[in-house]
Amino acid sequence: MSGFRHVVMFVWAEGTTTAQRQEVADRLSELPAKIPQIASYSMGTNAGINPGTYDFVVVADFAGVDDYLVYRDHPVHRAVIEETITPIVERRSAIQYELG
Amino acid sequence: MSGFRHVVMFVWAEGTTTAQRQEVADRLSELPAKIPQIASYSMGTNAGINPGTYDFVVVADFAGVDDYLVYRDHPVHRAVIEETITPIVERRSAIQYELG
Repeated sequence: MSGFRHVVMFVWAEGTTTAQRQEVADRLSELPAKIPQIASYSMGTNAGINPGTYDFVVVADFAGVDDYLVYRDHPVHRAVIEETITPIVERRSAIQYELG
Repeated sequence: MSGFRHVVMFVWAEGTTTAQRQEVADRLSELPAKIPQIASYSMGTNAGINPGTYDFVVVADFAGVDDYLVYRDHPVHRAVIEETITPIVERRSAIQYELG
């Protein structure tokens, strides 16, 4: 498909609880219903196959960069970040790219 | 879709040339034709929207973890890593997860 993709992965801080991790996934799962600019939304927890991997990842697809920017800056999204991700994140890695 | 997804992103070392970056993309692009276990293969270069992002990302989908492991350890894949990625990589971040 053509479009625009945002990929972000996180390492959670030591001591992060299962409930805190679940809260991130639960709150993010609500976003596609609240932000219609999201065309496709996939998230997942590290499968535990390889050492040195991240803990959690989100792959979000949009029709184009403008829709991504609406998502990035959307108050509902920012609230999820501030309330559930920021308190437990140790490391964050991200990239955005045009889907070929 | 159900399945298994591998996400990996890279920061290239300072001084990496455009030709070296292109060689990575070109060589990786050949993999789906050579490794039939790859169900879907997407890659991209940082769109330059946000600061602090990675330079290059690959999102590879498989029917299941066993197919991913074939890809991970495939000699053709390992050769691309060794010959084109390892020489220029400064930082690598990865995660694998079950597609819901």
